[in-house]
Amino acid sequence: METKAPEGYDVFARSCPSRGVFDRIGERWTGLVLLALQQGTMRFSELRRRIDGISQKMLTQTLRSLERDGLVAREVFPTVPVTVEYTLTPLGASLCDAVAVLRTWAYEHIDELETARAKFEDASA
Amino acid sequence: METKAPEGYDVFARSCPSRGVFDRIGERWTGLVLLALQQGTMRFSELRRRIDGISQKMLTQTLRSLERDGLVAREVFPTVPVTVEYTLTPLGASLCDAVAVLRTWAYEHIDELETARAKFEDASA
Repeated sequence: METKAPEGYDVFARSCPSRGVFDRIGERWTGLVLLALQQGTMRFSELRRRIDGISQKMLTQTLRSLERDGLVAREVFPTVPVTVEYTLTPLGASLCDAVAVLRTWAYEHIDELETARAKFEDASA
Repeated sequence: METKAPEGYDVFARSCPSRGVFDRIGERWTGLVLLALQQGTMRFSELRRRIDGISQKMLTQTLRSLERDGLVAREVFPTVPVTVEYTLTPLGASLCDAVAVLRTWAYEHIDELETARAKFEDASA
């Protein structure tokens, strides 16, 4: 499944905008935040509970990047204290579908990876 | 496209092996090395030229992780100097297909992301 890059784009070139997008998708928490929001609108605190191990700072940064890229919409409600909700945009939902392919791959191939690792460790021992 | 995790796996849980696999896939250079090898067997020096910006150290580390996980096969030929070639295994090729979905997404949505970024910067200015 080799994809030809459209209009001279090349993900292997540092200067290509597609490389920036590809790198952003791969950032530490991007995939998990998108996948968590696939289940529906969530508040900050709900996201933080859902994604085991994410810090408040990293979740804040990741959500801001996703909002900046038009992948997540942020809505503020004037309650006391203020309520902030996050929802995938249609663009974010389309990226989430692609990220979900990776999650499915991970679920389906854990055993093969673990077998390969055990073999490699034995061979290196 | 919500995928139910098989047998109690949960990518959101730090202790789940699927989380480890998912995080590994997202590491800085993993995707680009897999995509480069989708074009066929390559030597170290060819990979380094193909992937703009990767250092010798990072390429070495990434290839070793991929070999350990059974995603890439490493073959050494007793030439002078020694020749080392890297090839995707069938498992690596299947992961590469999933990563290629992300690359395709990046190629297809660069314009939308850049438009969203410009809007966000304007709104924040």
